[in-house]
Amino acid sequence: MKLGAFFHPTGHHVASWLHPGAQIDAGTNCRHYVELAQTAERGRFDLMFLADGLAVRDAPMEVLSRWPQYTVYFEPITLLSAIAASTRHLGLVATASTSYSAPYNLARAYASLDHISGGRAGWNVVTSGGDAAAANFDRVQYPHDERYDRAIEFVEVVRGLWDSWDDDAFVRDRANALYFDPAKLHTLDHVGKYFSVRGPLNAARPPQGHPVLFQAGGSPPGRDLAARLCEAVFTPLHTLEAAQSFYQDVKGRMARYGRRPDQLKIMPGLNPVIGRTRAEALEKHQYLQSLIHPKVGLELLSNALGGYDLSGCDVDGPLPAELDAMNTETGQTQFKNVLGWARNENLTIRQLYERFAGARGQRTVIGTGEEVADQLQDWFEAYGVDGFLIQPPYLPGGLDEFVDEVIPVLQQRGLFRTEYEGSTLRDNLGLERPRSRYEAPAAA
Amino acid sequence: MKLGAFFHPTGHHVASWLHPGAQIDAGTNCRHYVELAQTAERGRFDLMFLADGLAVRDAPMEVLSRWPQYTVYFEPITLLSAIAASTRHLGLVATASTSYSAPYNLARAYASLDHISGGRAGWNVVTSGGDAAAANFDRVQYPHDERYDRAIEFVEVVRGLWDSWDDDAFVRDRANALYFDPAKLHTLDHVGKYFSVRGPLNAARPPQGHPVLFQAGGSPPGRDLAARLCEAVFTPLHTLEAAQSFYQDVKGRMARYGRRPDQLKIMPGLNPVIGRTRAEALEKHQYLQSLIHPKVGLELLSNALGGYDLSGCDVDGPLPAELDAMNTETGQTQFKNVLGWARNENLTIRQLYERFAGARGQRTVIGTGEEVADQLQDWFEAYGVDGFLIQPPYLPGGLDEFVDEVIPVLQQRGLFRTEYEGSTLRDNLGLERPRSRYEAPAAA
Repeated sequence: MKLGAFFHPTGHHVASWLHPGAQIDAGTNCRHYVELAQTAERGRFDLMFLADGLAVRDAPMEVLSRWPQYTVYFEPITLLSAIAASTRHLGLVATASTSYSAPYNLARAYASLDHISGGRAGWNVVTSGGDAAAANFDRVQYPHDERYDRAIEFVEVVRGLWDSWDDDAFVRDRANALYFDPAKLHTLDHVGKYFSVRGPLNAARPPQGHPVLFQAGGSPPGRDLAARLCEAVFTPLHTLEAAQSFYQDVKGRMARYGRRPDQLKIMPGLNPVIGRTRAEALEKHQYLQSLIHPKVGLELLSNALGGYDLSGCDVDGPLPAELDAMNTETGQTQFKNVLGWARNENLTIRQLYERFAGARGQRTVIGTGEEVADQLQDWFEAYGVDGFLIQPPYLPGGLDEFVDEVIPVLQQRGLFRTEYEGSTLRDNLGLERPRSRYEAPAAA
Repeated sequence: MKLGAFFHPTGHHVASWLHPGAQIDAGTNCRHYVELAQTAERGRFDLMFLADGLAVRDAPMEVLSRWPQYTVYFEPITLLSAIAASTRHLGLVATASTSYSAPYNLARAYASLDHISGGRAGWNVVTSGGDAAAANFDRVQYPHDERYDRAIEFVEVVRGLWDSWDDDAFVRDRANALYFDPAKLHTLDHVGKYFSVRGPLNAARPPQGHPVLFQAGGSPPGRDLAARLCEAVFTPLHTLEAAQSFYQDVKGRMARYGRRPDQLKIMPGLNPVIGRTRAEALEKHQYLQSLIHPKVGLELLSNALGGYDLSGCDVDGPLPAELDAMNTETGQTQFKNVLGWARNENLTIRQLYERFAGARGQRTVIGTGEEVADQLQDWFEAYGVDGFLIQPPYLPGGLDEFVDEVIPVLQQRGLFRTEYEGSTLRDNLGLERPRSRYEAPAAA
């Protein structure tokens, strides 16, 4: 089983900053992240994972000022470079957008992180929806399908640039005053639909060949991008059936791109709330839920419903009926999921936002260390997943609990490593080191 | 006196990689840089400085393969983030271009580095001439004056974004569920000639208010950019008279922008070659010069002469006469300087490229620790400069020599600190922390 640790600044729960155990200045506290990384490494996590955005969210000020997650925070590649110096094995996965950077710049930054960390870098490829980011870059956002089309070309350019120098290009021969073998330098000369990039990259090939490519989205173009180019994917999956279906679908798409199913790891998000007893865990969860400010809950729920304005609604009543008619028009998985819960379980708006806001669309598992481990084991053994991206509800305490209460159970059951397999993120995830595009194919 | 340490990967001298004391894999060896930074901190340097480029240089392969400086190397902002974790006082100055990044991305990256390092970040603003970089970004390069015009607007946007949040915006009041004071958040709404950027930045105001702005160029628009917006400038200056003239000119331009002369530090580059005796220093220098491959020397000299093709020339003869006619047409300071040396001192091409290639256009000082200290003192006390950017000819040895042989002399003479004045780069450079543009002016 593969495990990643996804560190939202104060924790995954939307009200985590109000929890007395959360590091309240997390977004500007580098020490906080270094300590989280060291705890994750003590727990033998494969990797830590950081989200990113390119704007302060658009929200009414009375909501924004009560919801600091992703308001101010570190740029992830710089933060992970700092963390690299304080860790030895942990993979370092940073999110970056293909819509607001140039391929040459991102190729360099991740190559640099991979060299700095000795082969532990990963890139979570996102395409950045949202008008707020576009306004910071002198544009309107690209349409959804074009974003994915650009992303595919962007990633291919970046991979090409990473192959600019063969692994053994640098002979560093002082006697003959020859630093590299000219035959082992390659100029990409890419001219495509969206990008023209000559190359070569001014960075040696990364220790991993290519940093590991992650992808988050669950939409059809997102699934296709994952099947075509990515090596790990996480997406909200709430039932084992949904997980199995996603697993089959995405891994099934890989053959058309000449890839094997084991070249992609499926690791959905999971929010553990852990207690010494089940009752204590439930109480912890209820306490976190009680911290959600109603204005924040309504805003988050509104976002999940495509921006539908809920501000005039009674929070202790049901969702307005007109949403049911809209449901047939929207293609959004999230919209359908949220409305489904509301109607199937007859939830009030407050009950719904508590469920939704607490987990931010991901699956929550509440119980003792043994019980949480049971859930992980069930999904893993039923081939619903290859692993999980653990999202502690508040930090640092929620990570400590997982490392102290769940990891040892998984280790005792032989489901999770007790020592790292290797020194790179690829080694630990069990992913092959990619051959350079300029290398002769291996003999059959 | 202010001192920066400029770390070219294997050292400043163009043939440094051939010196047995140079770290030959410097461009991909993070440990090398961490140790250099720690040595610089032991020497109480104000800062370390990293250059940058966005392409492998265009050069014939037989030259490129023998001249590895800036062929493959770390992206500086990521490298300095890693170094921040291993140092406590040293300023961390990274070069980045205003021609191939978006202001929002650079504002974030430097804000992040400033938070990670506790207020030690600096940005060396460059505009990136050269067609090689342009070809990696789907463009031709902007004309020289437009590059500077864009740079001014770019820097102003970045400074505006750094002011998005007041220093005391984050009240983090759990009792009232209020994370920040809405009155202390500012949206830039910049619409200019080259950029439209809404803001606010998704990073808290940097510990230094703004990271320190450096500038390198000596051309008239470069001097104006420095006088208008920058806080430290380095440029090649070869004689005390030239330094005094530059000092007067740049500091004289500041009043028109409402700035005082002490708000800008002039720190030209200086290459020390240090021996226990003067004879040993001269021998060291001669050895380094002897390592220059003629093909590399000719190429570098050709670059300094605006690309003039020297490949057919006898290296032991003079420069071709037709260059004298071209000299009146070009506006390049470097062209005039190089040709001036050649003619005034009757140098052969080899003698010229040895002088030029060894120092890469900067001033070389050769002697004992006492003698090098004398030179620094003379220029400093004659108001030619506020300090120097020390460029050791090979690394790590050349830095060790400066720290062990020159710094103690400067300290004994009361010219250089024995302990850091403060914890930020601004504290140590004696630069004020900039007020936010949204702050009410101080009472008179």
